[in-house]
Amino acid sequence: MSSLLPNYWAGRWQYGTGPGIPLMDPVLGQELVRVSSDGLDLEQGLAHAREVGGPALRALSYRERADLLSRVGEVLQAHREAYFEIAIANSGTTRKDSSIDIDGAIYTLGQYARWGQSLGQARVLLDGPGCNLARGGAFASRHVLTPTRGVALFINAFNFPAWGLWEKAAPALLSGVPVVVKPATATAWLAQRMVADVVAAGVLPAGALSVLCGSSRGLLDTLQPFDVLSFTGSAQTAALIRSHPAVAQASVRVNIEADSLNSAILLPDATPDSQAFELLVSEVVREMTVKSGQKCTAIRRIFVPEACFDAAAEAIVAQLELVSVGNPRNESVRMGALVNREQLGSVREGLAALQSQTEVLHDGNDHALIDADPAVASCIGPTLLATRHPQDAHRVHDTEVFGPVATLMPYRSLDEALSLVHRGQGSLVTSLYGAQPQTLADMALALADSHGRVHVVSPDVAAAHSGHGNVMPQSLHGGPGRAGGGEELGGLRALGFYHRRSAIQASPSVLAEVLPQGTAWTVD
Amino acid sequence: MSSLLPNYWAGRWQYGTGPGIPLMDPVLGQELVRVSSDGLDLEQGLAHAREVGGPALRALSYRERADLLSRVGEVLQAHREAYFEIAIANSGTTRKDSSIDIDGAIYTLGQYARWGQSLGQARVLLDGPGCNLARGGAFASRHVLTPTRGVALFINAFNFPAWGLWEKAAPALLSGVPVVVKPATATAWLAQRMVADVVAAGVLPAGALSVLCGSSRGLLDTLQPFDVLSFTGSAQTAALIRSHPAVAQASVRVNIEADSLNSAILLPDATPDSQAFELLVSEVVREMTVKSGQKCTAIRRIFVPEACFDAAAEAIVAQLELVSVGNPRNESVRMGALVNREQLGSVREGLAALQSQTEVLHDGNDHALIDADPAVASCIGPTLLATRHPQDAHRVHDTEVFGPVATLMPYRSLDEALSLVHRGQGSLVTSLYGAQPQTLADMALALADSHGRVHVVSPDVAAAHSGHGNVMPQSLHGGPGRAGGGEELGGLRALGFYHRRSAIQASPSVLAEVLPQGTAWTVD
Repeated sequence: MSSLLPNYWAGRWQYGTGPGIPLMDPVLGQELVRVSSDGLDLEQGLAHAREVGGPALRALSYRERADLLSRVGEVLQAHREAYFEIAIANSGTTRKDSSIDIDGAIYTLGQYARWGQSLGQARVLLDGPGCNLARGGAFASRHVLTPTRGVALFINAFNFPAWGLWEKAAPALLSGVPVVVKPATATAWLAQRMVADVVAAGVLPAGALSVLCGSSRGLLDTLQPFDVLSFTGSAQTAALIRSHPAVAQASVRVNIEADSLNSAILLPDATPDSQAFELLVSEVVREMTVKSGQKCTAIRRIFVPEACFDAAAEAIVAQLELVSVGNPRNESVRMGALVNREQLGSVREGLAALQSQTEVLHDGNDHALIDADPAVASCIGPTLLATRHPQDAHRVHDTEVFGPVATLMPYRSLDEALSLVHRGQGSLVTSLYGAQPQTLADMALALADSHGRVHVVSPDVAAAHSGHGNVMPQSLHGGPGRAGGGEELGGLRALGFYHRRSAIQASPSVLAEVLPQGTAWTVD
Repeated sequence: MSSLLPNYWAGRWQYGTGPGIPLMDPVLGQELVRVSSDGLDLEQGLAHAREVGGPALRALSYRERADLLSRVGEVLQAHREAYFEIAIANSGTTRKDSSIDIDGAIYTLGQYARWGQSLGQARVLLDGPGCNLARGGAFASRHVLTPTRGVALFINAFNFPAWGLWEKAAPALLSGVPVVVKPATATAWLAQRMVADVVAAGVLPAGALSVLCGSSRGLLDTLQPFDVLSFTGSAQTAALIRSHPAVAQASVRVNIEADSLNSAILLPDATPDSQAFELLVSEVVREMTVKSGQKCTAIRRIFVPEACFDAAAEAIVAQLELVSVGNPRNESVRMGALVNREQLGSVREGLAALQSQTEVLHDGNDHALIDADPAVASCIGPTLLATRHPQDAHRVHDTEVFGPVATLMPYRSLDEALSLVHRGQGSLVTSLYGAQPQTLADMALALADSHGRVHVVSPDVAAAHSGHGNVMPQSLHGGPGRAGGGEELGGLRALGFYHRRSAIQASPSVLAEVLPQGTAWTVD
């Protein structure tokens, strides 16, 4: 049996009881390590974070906490190679794909460290200007943001064990709120190791960071009204979380990032020989294959003008044929594995559901695997589906296949394109490809209410744009409706989730005493 | 039988089937009117608002919608006397108490009309400055706020039929989101009449405003992902709403304003002969008696330094003894009725629960009723309870009695006062009484994270302050934890709930086309 990873819980390393759950190499099929949270005192862990970590963090200023983030980033940078080894073994991702997770985490931490510096020595933030409540300003109102007096519990997804932890932890810690992370079991190793390195380096105050690996059973029962919960995962689990008494009755604040049927739209001004067309094709192929399509933000639906349909199909298929799939340790491999056999089964099931309403333009099963045994490895090639009747193919707009799968569809008018995109009922991101600034801007605004992010690719940004699926910490990450209704990142906007807004109504002399403790800066 | 009120539903006046539910005069015990939503096509009503009202409102600019609010205010002003008659009959409130509801509604509408003017001819709002995503700004990100493409459903409480509608409708309509209101049945008449007057005046576009009176059965089932729901009422109903599939699964955005055990705190520097002491006493008495204590923001818990306990008890009781209770039509009556016999029963039940852990300093049952029959009228005098052992009296911190009831408690240190206040698990508002600006500011900041509003009363604002329980549209209304975790009002901050935030990532030339459609202004 492989070794059991300890949990950092209630301020010390603790092993769960029992044999634990094995974490596997999805390419070689070997057991790597095991995790268990069984037998741990969950209440005690949250109480420690709340009562030891919270006060210690809140005693620091924003700038001091920003310094902590810088030091965490340095620790992670120092151990970066170990993380790549874990990622390749446990996530089955290529070095390039692993970098999105690992270097994405370090970059995001660095950004929040930098933004945090701008908040200075304050321990509370002012929110907007003051407002008179009596003639001549004899009584007035000021809004402040103060860190919530609880813990930030993260229940994370398997696809970004590193970035998923730090993109949430950076704004939480900067806000003065202690972090408790429950990484997805399948890939918990990397998150656990990062926490271990940060703990060993002693850069954070006691209680500021805890990690629990394995089952989350009973964890939500320990939440109290001033805790906050951030969940990334399925819409099904999200619904269970929202109905839990801690949320439904005690008003624990929740942020949900769930399923999403993100789209890419080639605008009508594009022709098969235009640069916008080329940009769409290469972005679609990149999104389908990066991390084997296991990104919440990946393109799942591709909409092109009817006249471009055949050319788009041909161009995407031509590029997909070149994608090498298999063992990420082999340098010729572009696309590694899915996270495990269970996900492989789930992708195959989803593909079968979509195929009942689409045709297969390129079949991922036709890709020979490099250095990987199809009977063992969780590998599958990219699959492009298509339908000429997108209005009738409801599954294409309903079923998220979390793998290297996308569906190509034609549209006849921009109105139809909008209506088809809206069939996704709210997504994390949509991308537009075209050359006319006015049309692109109009479409971006028309889609803004149903998407957390609209990514516009015009020829002038061919080399500069940040990618449809890449989540930049500067921009909002989250989406309405089916996407869960959450909001993460977006620069300092992310701090709002970890703060409480309050109006202080008082005389100018009292408000003057509040002011020096704040800054002139406003969240979101 | 009294007459049945029609519902304004799917763009026309429609009567529910069956005999309906009677609305009563809580003082005279007479039936006034009846309401019924039975048999109405609920889906159709929401679809009409969504598909007719939404596009019509979104086609207007913020300034044009602000003009609509002004016209609504004028309509309400013109019919103001009729509203007072309904309020006195159906709510049993004095003219002064009715004014808080009616004139509060008109004032709030006026404020949003004024603030809306400042947003100009835009149809979308910019959120914060732009952010570079590539060297030299070749690719950048801007955040925009666009009106949500759904309806705003309000499920409202009985205590503010007028203000409760318009404090929510003003920011919703200004945002471009159509309103569907389901007023609490007991006092639905006033809301229904206001909607009738606005509809008759023809000031709003078709589909912008609908009202449904009676049962809300099935109403939540009609919600779709881009609708929003604002609920004011009990924590119990709030939990049901949060667990409903529309919210738990479809991510319908919800704002909850629930129970609250608001507190008033006399700071240690006050003595019984200080002005701060006097200010606390008169504010406590006002809060206990205004609208017979039927305000979500009313003071329920009073904390004074131990040395002031006896003097505070004596001073509050002395003022409570002068409170005349009974028929609000009699001009000598200061405090009218509770909303109905059911609430009277509920207040008596709550009082019994509190009395098991407190002593009665002043008994509301001792007040003789003026022009009202105790066997018929839902009247009860103000009751002051007290305990010298607030740490042991858990019910005082747990049980909201929604009537003219408060409990006086001593504290020994500011830390103890804070810990006692926090036993409320999050409240809408707390008020502080003292003369030292630094202490007041420190306490305000210490309580900001657990209260939506901190109201500070120092001698210099004796005449100017806006009152502990009065909700000013300039300031946030809502509170964390037990108070429901919601946010309303706070000036233009209220618009955030009705908008979707989205990051548009594009080239400068595309963003330049987005910009002229927005303004330089930021919601948050």
